[in-house]
Amino acid sequence: MVNVGIVGATGYAGEELIKILLRHPGVKITYLSAKIDKPIPISEIFGYLKGRLEIICELPDYKRMASLCELLFMALPHTVSMEMVPYLLKENLKIIDLSADYRLRDIKNYEKFYNVKHKSPQIIKEAVYGLPELYREKIKKAKLIANPGCYPTAGILGILPALIADLIETDSIIIDAKSGFTGAGRKPDLNNIFSEVNENLKAYKVNIHQHMPEIEEQLSRFSKKKIKINFVPHLIPLNRGILETIYLKKKDKKLEVKEIISVYKRFYKKEPFIRIYEEKKFPQIKDVLYTNFCDLGFYTKAGEDLLIVIVAIDNLLKGASGQAVQNFNIMYGFNERESLL
Amino acid sequence: MVNVGIVGATGYAGEELIKILLRHPGVKITYLSAKIDKPIPISEIFGYLKGRLEIICELPDYKRMASLCELLFMALPHTVSMEMVPYLLKENLKIIDLSADYRLRDIKNYEKFYNVKHKSPQIIKEAVYGLPELYREKIKKAKLIANPGCYPTAGILGILPALIADLIETDSIIIDAKSGFTGAGRKPDLNNIFSEVNENLKAYKVNIHQHMPEIEEQLSRFSKKKIKINFVPHLIPLNRGILETIYLKKKDKKLEVKEIISVYKRFYKKEPFIRIYEEKKFPQIKDVLYTNFCDLGFYTKAGEDLLIVIVAIDNLLKGASGQAVQNFNIMYGFNERESLL
Amino acid sequence: MVNVGIVGATGYAGEELIKILLRHPGVKITYLSAKIDKPIPISEIFGYLKGRLEIICELPDYKRMASLCELLFMALPHTVSMEMVPYLLKENLKIIDLSADYRLRDIKNYEKFYNVKHKSPQIIKEAVYGLPELYREKIKKAKLIANPGCYPTAGILGILPALIADLIETDSIIIDAKSGFTGAGRKPDLNNIFSEVNENLKAYKVNIHQHMPEIEEQLSRFSKKKIKINFVPHLIPLNRGILETIYLKKKDKKLEVKEIISVYKRFYKKEPFIRIYEEKKFPQIKDVLYTNFCDLGFYTKAGEDLLIVIVAIDNLLKGASGQAVQNFNIMYGFNERESLL
Amino acid sequence: MVNVGIVGATGYAGEELIKILLRHPGVKITYLSAKIDKPIPISEIFGYLKGRLEIICELPDYKRMASLCELLFMALPHTVSMEMVPYLLKENLKIIDLSADYRLRDIKNYEKFYNVKHKSPQIIKEAVYGLPELYREKIKKAKLIANPGCYPTAGILGILPALIADLIETDSIIIDAKSGFTGAGRKPDLNNIFSEVNENLKAYKVNIHQHMPEIEEQLSRFSKKKIKINFVPHLIPLNRGILETIYLKKKDKKLEVKEIISVYKRFYKKEPFIRIYEEKKFPQIKDVLYTNFCDLGFYTKAGEDLLIVIVAIDNLLKGASGQAVQNFNIMYGFNERESLL
Repeated sequence: MVNVGIVGATGYAGEELIKILLRHPGVKITYLSAKIDKPIPISEIFGYLKGRLEIICELPDYKRMASLCELLFMALPHTVSMEMVPYLLKENLKIIDLSADYRLRDIKNYEKFYNVKHKSPQIIKEAVYGLPELYREKIKKAKLIANPGCYPTAGILGILPALIADLIETDSIIIDAKSGFTGAGRKPDLNNIFSEVNENLKAYKVNIHQHMPEIEEQLSRFSKKKIKINFVPHLIPLNRGILETIYLKKKDKKLEVKEIISVYKRFYKKEPFIRIYEEKKFPQIKDVLYTNFCDLGFYTKAGEDLLIVIVAIDNLLKGASGQAVQNFNIMYGFNERESLL
Repeated sequence: MVNVGIVGATGYAGEELIKILLRHPGVKITYLSAKIDKPIPISEIFGYLKGRLEIICELPDYKRMASLCELLFMALPHTVSMEMVPYLLKENLKIIDLSADYRLRDIKNYEKFYNVKHKSPQIIKEAVYGLPELYREKIKKAKLIANPGCYPTAGILGILPALIADLIETDSIIIDAKSGFTGAGRKPDLNNIFSEVNENLKAYKVNIHQHMPEIEEQLSRFSKKKIKINFVPHLIPLNRGILETIYLKKKDKKLEVKEIISVYKRFYKKEPFIRIYEEKKFPQIKDVLYTNFCDLGFYTKAGEDLLIVIVAIDNLLKGASGQAVQNFNIMYGFNERESLL
Repeated sequence: MVNVGIVGATGYAGEELIKILLRHPGVKITYLSAKIDKPIPISEIFGYLKGRLEIICELPDYKRMASLCELLFMALPHTVSMEMVPYLLKENLKIIDLSADYRLRDIKNYEKFYNVKHKSPQIIKEAVYGLPELYREKIKKAKLIANPGCYPTAGILGILPALIADLIETDSIIIDAKSGFTGAGRKPDLNNIFSEVNENLKAYKVNIHQHMPEIEEQLSRFSKKKIKINFVPHLIPLNRGILETIYLKKKDKKLEVKEIISVYKRFYKKEPFIRIYEEKKFPQIKDVLYTNFCDLGFYTKAGEDLLIVIVAIDNLLKGASGQAVQNFNIMYGFNERESLL
Repeated sequence: MVNVGIVGATGYAGEELIKILLRHPGVKITYLSAKIDKPIPISEIFGYLKGRLEIICELPDYKRMASLCELLFMALPHTVSMEMVPYLLKENLKIIDLSADYRLRDIKNYEKFYNVKHKSPQIIKEAVYGLPELYREKIKKAKLIANPGCYPTAGILGILPALIADLIETDSIIIDAKSGFTGAGRKPDLNNIFSEVNENLKAYKVNIHQHMPEIEEQLSRFSKKKIKINFVPHLIPLNRGILETIYLKKKDKKLEVKEIISVYKRFYKKEPFIRIYEEKKFPQIKDVLYTNFCDLGFYTKAGEDLLIVIVAIDNLLKGASGQAVQNFNIMYGFNERESLL
């Protein structure tokens, strides 16, 4: 039994972690904290936990984290983790950080896109980027996981096999992303209220979203060139799910969709959470909702420049908490699918 | 041309007033104000007004209201109007107040349910309750209209004909009300954000909602007894619309639904915005959406105690701004349906 | 390992059964059938099952059901089960029937409300009504379970403790029910399409819904009188969940809400899926969604006639497939919560 | 007063035409027909028309159309108009056809994408493509208007100014389109039911949608080359609205967004329904909903290849019935905005 804590337990990612970990036979939740006014039973915040998890959600306290837990899931807003992590690592805790604070090796990009000075830059190089499909071996031995962002998870998984197989031009990558509203977090804001979001649809942060450098950095690691992408996220009136429609330019116009599909199948052949669709079939959010799967579909034709990759994930699972538990399972030698099906 | 202003122009009711009044051939909008940080063109707040209404939304200023307008629509949160109205009446402005501040003759009830001391109680008796179906003659001459609440509009219109015809017991009235989310106003609040409201449904303020005394006072005016009702409002994940399912006890079990329907038809026979459904047909929100209609359907059987009345309105039109313009049309001698069809 | 089949696997209840049973350590799904054109892998119908359940969904065939399964979940439209069940019982299969075909002891009511002649009336008395909170001991030994309807589950669980404790009048029970749209089944119909349902809300089958006699029959079994109820269901634009607001008349006006709550707590004290809310707190659909819980909240005051009980369930879980698996767990001696948390 | 009829009055476009034309001071609706079982008052189909439009919706009958109307709006499924139009033109009716039957000059494309032989090809050249921003002078004198599709309206208006100003490459146009669900028509279909669409999101007809050749043909008319586009439509769980995110490649990398904006402003400077957004602002569906506006926003930077144009319209207004009435206003010399604000 691994004693784990969740810091930031009342946000959407924290809540989802509670749900998954309650099903996990190798885990005991021993600590919950959040930015709240005073300690309160978690079952008063999430009514459906009544009779299932009767512990107190506390105010964050390093000492109690260290004394009660072996591993911490940190589901905090960006720029908060970087203050807490150095202390916690010293106390020998393992950490899976769902924020962006340790995802970017390039500190300048972090400071530009998150508009803040990094407070523990020395630790960044210790962090392993927690995308199992790319870094499983490093994850096994990691003490600090930088759990990927929701958009980057879908984007990187959708582009990388074609990039590594050298099938696409690297200077004209376009990601048109559509996200459900939990992606915006549990924050009171006039733009977030139901009657403003319902029956509406909009693009936001057009080509300036903070997840862009994360995708670019990961793609660049597997390419000879520094890769720049174009990224337009849209907010959709549904609770969960991300669909990314990715437009790529083939190096060889003659390439057919069957060949693409077989490249992706080979790349992901042992992956427990990647599903490749056959020609003319495309993923939809419904098929990945409440699962940790990442589904991929493809369009191209011999003679056409364009390769279209459509990727679907549940933003709170493969895009956040599900992936965090997948990483946890890898770190502790559990079956990678444990509690994720 | 009547020069009108809207105070509280950025809330849902204020926005709806702008939309209606822009279509009104006898109205010029000459003033807009709201609780904002600094003056800003209204078309920057509501993008769709670009090219249609290019005036500045200002911070509230009594003097400018008085100098620019002949009549003011006040679409403010409760407890704000009562500070402004005494001054404005002195300046000879006519006022249609969409807040609750002058709806209740019984000041004690106001102070209990709105939890605040009334600041201009001397003015309450000057106000006419702006439900045209009951008070049309008084509205014609009114200087201050207390525009009814959304739930009370539906509830009173649904119950009153049976009450006045002495068909129902007065001690067992139950209103089960369902409201779209604009009824909660444009307010940032953790409970109002999309992902909390979408795919959820709940009752709130069970039998303690502040619209109860308003319904009770109006019903009591037409009854020999002081009437107490039971009222359970529910929040529904849709933008607009109210459906009230009203449970009444017939005095005479033998009464058939056809007789009920003919009583209501007679009561409302000249009303431009009331529609009575035939037996076995019931109103739905879709049929009143974006209209000022109030639709009524009925269920009972000879031999059964219960009479069920189902009422549907658009909460922002017949439940707020549409009714306000209906009152305006009556006050100024326009066709009562002007700009409301 | 119990080999089970699902007949009607492609409807909402059948789909939900697949999801639950895939998590169940004591179950193997060995047979699926549905009214389809030709056999097809279930993972082509429900894309998210790819890689998780790779069996063929067949056309219904009694012989294969009998040879491949020990128990059948029958998730069929009403009036279909009653043709198949006699044969299957003879083949010694156990059956959990989610349709209404064996729920009503009173055949006349069945034939009136479902508008069809019953084809196996001799079997009705063998069926156990599958509400564990009332009939757990009988369920243990049952060969045929008539799994309750969604509205009746919430209604009966909300009323029965007060009825059995003789706290309420039996002639003035009102249930105002609100249901998500999966309750209408997976049927193509002009009234069911997204743009007709979204942003709409309506009552339907006012006091003539086929679930009324089911509630009345169960309540009457525990009362000296034959009980008649009033029942108004409403369709809400959300996928899942039922909220019932139940209006009851207390026999003793002096009764306080605390006393009511303690009666319900005592009644349900050992129940694994019933949660009683404290005074002034009320259940919402969000808190039971994707769970098998039934949550109950209460309003009344000393001096008032009315007792309001608010009940929330997930219509596809406690209202259908979750309850079916709860019954299965009881029949086979599994922990009653197995795969339902 | 122009006597007009609506053929296909019960679909979404037909319904919207009724709503608009009821407000139009120069129009009398004298005829309605639809594919229905028997004649029925239109107010029984659309309850909200009670007391507003009390005419019978009939079965289609050429003679009655010709004797009762001067102009017909035909809001029929594709491939139906082409049978009726030749007869009606002979009877001297003017026709605004909302279907695709006369939109494509290239009959081969029509027959390929609509999968049917054209039945009145001789008439195609008489039809004027009803996009007022391009063909206003021809529309004035037209007898047959081929009213544009919803996706093409947004796509053509978004691309054409840059194309005509020769600012973009013509071989790499990508339209990522998102549409509300009324775009799918009022058709019973298992994929269209609420619980399948709600909380889902998917791409469909990836690069094979029948609106592609329509966009390509119109763009090609204004270009030296035959233009091929890439087009990926997505279905969004909202009732109305289209948002298109268009990815274009600039011929001159140095071009700044301000220059683009001024090209578009000049192109559309007299247009009553086009609104150009300033730099860093982008349209959203909410701002065009229930209006006939087409809003346009832009992203690019000096040094970047990509120009992103975001376009929003209401699919039932500027994308269908609003545009049809705009064409009607032009044909009959009404103010072009009449009944459309």
